[in-house]
Amino acid sequence: MNNIEQLFQKILQDKRPENLYNPISYILMQSGKRLRPQLVYIAAEMFNGDPEQVKHIAAAFEMLHNFTLIHDDIMDKADVRRGQPTVYKKWNGNIAILAGDALAVIAMQQLLKLQCDPKTILDLIDIFGRTALEVCEGQQYDLDFETMDEVSLDEYLNMIRLKTSVMFAGCLKAGGRFAGADEESLQALYDLGIHLGIAFQIADDLLDVYAEEEVFGKAVGGDIKDNKKTFLLLKALELADESQKQELHRLFTTPATDEKAKFLAVKSIFDAVHAKEATEKEIARYTEKCIDDINRIHTEKEKKAFVLSLVHRLQSRDK
Amino acid sequence: MNNIEQLFQKILQDKRPENLYNPISYILMQSGKRLRPQLVYIAAEMFNGDPEQVKHIAAAFEMLHNFTLIHDDIMDKADVRRGQPTVYKKWNGNIAILAGDALAVIAMQQLLKLQCDPKTILDLIDIFGRTALEVCEGQQYDLDFETMDEVSLDEYLNMIRLKTSVMFAGCLKAGGRFAGADEESLQALYDLGIHLGIAFQIADDLLDVYAEEEVFGKAVGGDIKDNKKTFLLLKALELADESQKQELHRLFTTPATDEKAKFLAVKSIFDAVHAKEATEKEIARYTEKCIDDINRIHTEKEKKAFVLSLVHRLQSRDK
Repeated sequence: MNNIEQLFQKILQDKRPENLYNPISYILMQSGKRLRPQLVYIAAEMFNGDPEQVKHIAAAFEMLHNFTLIHDDIMDKADVRRGQPTVYKKWNGNIAILAGDALAVIAMQQLLKLQCDPKTILDLIDIFGRTALEVCEGQQYDLDFETMDEVSLDEYLNMIRLKTSVMFAGCLKAGGRFAGADEESLQALYDLGIHLGIAFQIADDLLDVYAEEEVFGKAVGGDIKDNKKTFLLLKALELADESQKQELHRLFTTPATDEKAKFLAVKSIFDAVHAKEATEKEIARYTEKCIDDINRIHTEKEKKAFVLSLVHRLQSRDK
Repeated sequence: MNNIEQLFQKILQDKRPENLYNPISYILMQSGKRLRPQLVYIAAEMFNGDPEQVKHIAAAFEMLHNFTLIHDDIMDKADVRRGQPTVYKKWNGNIAILAGDALAVIAMQQLLKLQCDPKTILDLIDIFGRTALEVCEGQQYDLDFETMDEVSLDEYLNMIRLKTSVMFAGCLKAGGRFAGADEESLQALYDLGIHLGIAFQIADDLLDVYAEEEVFGKAVGGDIKDNKKTFLLLKALELADESQKQELHRLFTTPATDEKAKFLAVKSIFDAVHAKEATEKEIARYTEKCIDDINRIHTEKEKKAFVLSLVHRLQSRDK
């Protein structure tokens, strides 16, 4: 992905004002997972898309992702991301709003740089726009959930579909569309992104409680501390008896005097109702769906090896 | 412009979540000047663009403008706009960030609805993207100016070119491009927008001090109260002698105990150095440039009547 960082540098070179472009450069140059560009490349490679061109699409989606991070961190008042101060913290809220706005525009502009027929570019902009809008919708549902007493598992899954999955789906579909994939394969790529994103997010929820801290690279229990509604919690509530339900409710609505004690109390209920196993089962179920989706992509078997390994890698991730 | 509100309603119908779309609907349905859609229509009409199609471009730019207002009001902590609570005030900062983000995307998506050749749509998206990015740059310069001791008139003009003029220019160029105007006319339309925007903003700065409050519809002196760097102030500083300069500097850096007294003290220096006349001269100079630009548009004279009347109306506006 070295390629993409060179492209970011080129795009941002000599741009003014500095207070707008320095924060953009700061976040783009952090070494993230670059998962979204990978998805764009993987889909494009399955249909022999030219990597020199595909990089513009990969950059567009990675920038779109980072735009959402900049704005989410303002909303969540998050101080640290990827081990470094957030844009909001390092500069301030106003600069973070504007840097995010500008980054979203620059992201879209990358698609205009593609050397291909105009109709393809318009289709890519359409995919990009739908993705961006749905991510906003997902984030708003997430904000709404903070003040809602009850959230159903279906509501939660719809929220993470919008907040996380559509970006994966958009990346895969865009890569495939550019490379000339047929309609059925595009639908399979899109579905793969949806299922992969959900499995990814549920695994994220699980790791927050059950990860090995040394491997995870950050403290466990963040979601419990923030009283966040996660798949694990909602599943536990579904499995809990009345007294366990009330205890979970109390733990998540009363300000904690001892965060460690709260974490252990919540975890002991999760353990008692076997929420971990139920969640792992759900991750496996979505991973199965991913395999089915991959089977529906019309390309040679050997071209699917990479995406299959990615799916398995994400399923068994420990950080 | 009734047309455009119907379109807004149709676009936003049945959209969820409500906390994302209600603020968008709220700001779009406020009766603003609708100046930007007018500019799109005016340019398109000069080259016989189909109004049924042009409305999508007009909507895109009006939405883009409102996106900037939603986010600017967070940054400026502005409570009221168009006589109503701002989105930031009526809901909250987080909702205003997300509503703005979503609105910018929806704005762009309107261009994808055009029924015309794909290359034209790509050109319009290119104009739209450049406009959006430059408006962000202008807003960042404006934020930067708040903490700068000295701002030159040239720096100020560059800021309002980006913050205000490029949107006018983008509207005119986009309308013309859609309707098939030639390259020279497109350049003339773009230049017209730049000059009109600067004249418009300088007139705005003037009205803040010299408007008749009953006609103006809001209190005068807001910019002075907020210690804002305006054309009027920067021109006055240019014309002032050393003691007047120091007095202005003192007035704009010391917290005022009596806002009315501060306003009158500032105004008396403006009057003494004839800043009003110098500013009016500058507005007239930019209006002249507008007339020259209009003369460079390759269309029949009678088709220019409307844009000429708009230029004169904006030049002599009293609110």
